[in-house]
Amino acid sequence: MKGHKFYAKRNVLITGGLGFLGSNLAARLVELGASVTLYDGLIADLGANFFNIEAIKDRVKVVIADIGDRSAMDHHVRNQDIIFNIGMHSCHLDSMKDPVFDIQTNVVPQINFLESLRYRNPEAKVIYVGTRAQYGRVENPPITETAPLNPMDIYSVSKQAVEWYHMLYGKICGLRPTSLRLGNTYGPRHQMRHAKYGVQNYLMRLALDNKQIEVFGDGSQKRELIYVDDVVECLLLLGEKEHCVGEVYAIGTNERVTFVELVKEIIKACGSGSFVHVPWPEDRKIIEVGDVVTDYSKLTAHTKWTPSTRLSEGLRITAEYYRQYKKHYW
Amino acid sequence: MKGHKFYAKRNVLITGGLGFLGSNLAARLVELGASVTLYDGLIADLGANFFNIEAIKDRVKVVIADIGDRSAMDHHVRNQDIIFNIGMHSCHLDSMKDPVFDIQTNVVPQINFLESLRYRNPEAKVIYVGTRAQYGRVENPPITETAPLNPMDIYSVSKQAVEWYHMLYGKICGLRPTSLRLGNTYGPRHQMRHAKYGVQNYLMRLALDNKQIEVFGDGSQKRELIYVDDVVECLLLLGEKEHCVGEVYAIGTNERVTFVELVKEIIKACGSGSFVHVPWPEDRKIIEVGDVVTDYSKLTAHTKWTPSTRLSEGLRITAEYYRQYKKHYW
Repeated sequence: MKGHKFYAKRNVLITGGLGFLGSNLAARLVELGASVTLYDGLIADLGANFFNIEAIKDRVKVVIADIGDRSAMDHHVRNQDIIFNIGMHSCHLDSMKDPVFDIQTNVVPQINFLESLRYRNPEAKVIYVGTRAQYGRVENPPITETAPLNPMDIYSVSKQAVEWYHMLYGKICGLRPTSLRLGNTYGPRHQMRHAKYGVQNYLMRLALDNKQIEVFGDGSQKRELIYVDDVVECLLLLGEKEHCVGEVYAIGTNERVTFVELVKEIIKACGSGSFVHVPWPEDRKIIEVGDVVTDYSKLTAHTKWTPSTRLSEGLRITAEYYRQYKKHYW
Repeated sequence: MKGHKFYAKRNVLITGGLGFLGSNLAARLVELGASVTLYDGLIADLGANFFNIEAIKDRVKVVIADIGDRSAMDHHVRNQDIIFNIGMHSCHLDSMKDPVFDIQTNVVPQINFLESLRYRNPEAKVIYVGTRAQYGRVENPPITETAPLNPMDIYSVSKQAVEWYHMLYGKICGLRPTSLRLGNTYGPRHQMRHAKYGVQNYLMRLALDNKQIEVFGDGSQKRELIYVDDVVECLLLLGEKEHCVGEVYAIGTNERVTFVELVKEIIKACGSGSFVHVPWPEDRKIIEVGDVVTDYSKLTAHTKWTPSTRLSEGLRITAEYYRQYKKHYW
């Protein structure tokens, strides 16, 4: 892994810092000598887990407040060099069942967050973590940054709107935003209490508990699974490269598997579990995006990033982690 | 003007019913024998004006409540056949100065409105009035419904997000939405207190008061001005045609004028006023979209709509209206 000397002594704020991606990023930043502040709203059902930062808890600052809390955010954004803005809910289904929750969690606080930056620290770099789902079902694969936007659930609309808000604050108020439209990510420190989002992680719980995994339909839809350390590496690169400011990036991997192949790999990595095919539930079918095939050549060209963790290896490490720390996750 | 027998005895709700477009639409619907409810939040600085409905006040029901007020909306959406959802602020500049206001006015209440529909009247047709600004600056004119979305201010992002929310409620919850991406509209009953939006209307106030109109730069940017009665006709067509459900429409006119030509036409219609060229203010320049050239052939194909009011004629009627009722507008 590269050195990223850039981050030594840098002040870095991570929203959603106690969650899956935020805590993995934090661990790496601490290694690199950054001064890290983790900001988290501890919203029920989302990914925050204090155990995620157990190993680094004495070397980070933790702020528990709503992302839209102007008092808290106005104070904590000051003097930050880089802000990784990760703190949002990511449940497609919940966003359809309760759109008001979606707006109140993913849109309103984000505008307040941007206002804090605008008035207290417009010079900071902001790396926004968007979602591949902003494209929805892509008629002409592969996905690139210029594919038509076709969000298929409330969550994905909100993520697109907030990406635009970031870019506009960049153009109008001098903020320095970059957006990464992230796809399915897996690895240690994901929430494992429910399957409402990050289902690729929840499947491992089922396998480790020797349960039967339900595969909707024939499970032939293609997926790109990105190991969390590869995403962390990508975020670090985006944070340090000035020419990424104002840009949007798609991310993926060239190791594509069908959903049913993924399930088999998980069962293999865990050494337990089984699976069965069941019909598609109506609420899932309607927001299912089909095959995911991403062209991430812009990201590679701008940052030299490529995925480095094979699925089998990533799943092996992940299974080991949850086997060891299971009691902290479910 | 066609008969629109469809609307006789129909229950119609108009959000933003006391504003410019809402009140003009209401007057026509009353003529057509519809049972009209005007719902308005009377938000300061927006277009609501009780004088707009002076002539029809005894033949409509008026509800004053926030669009996001679930108690009020849950009650009033029941039994409505058609809902024209027009009630939003439309100020590009304000949305950049105070994005929180934008979100709290144009996004949050709209999701609550859609929830009311979802649970109380999912069968209603909903005509959403979006904005041409969802496209932003269009690199390859003309504008069509499939032009890339490139909103250039917070307002336009929010309008696009809310359009998507409408369409998703259509797909998932059975609502029947149609969206009209409206451009510059002019005519009687517009607010004339400030130039923050609908500037094409405010210019007439300046001319009628024999003031000097400032033209930014050389004023050579092309504009399509649509007379409000033509928009009303379009909305009526969209509301009655079942095959427009789930569709998005661009609207324009083939009578394009440069901004400076428009100013000259206004001065001519008013018989007073003058103009001067001044440099572009920075905050305007950054959100200026350049020439507007729209291909509205999809709208014409689906509804047979075409604009029928020449600019000179529309401006003449408009000048007459404001000359007569000036004291109710400024």
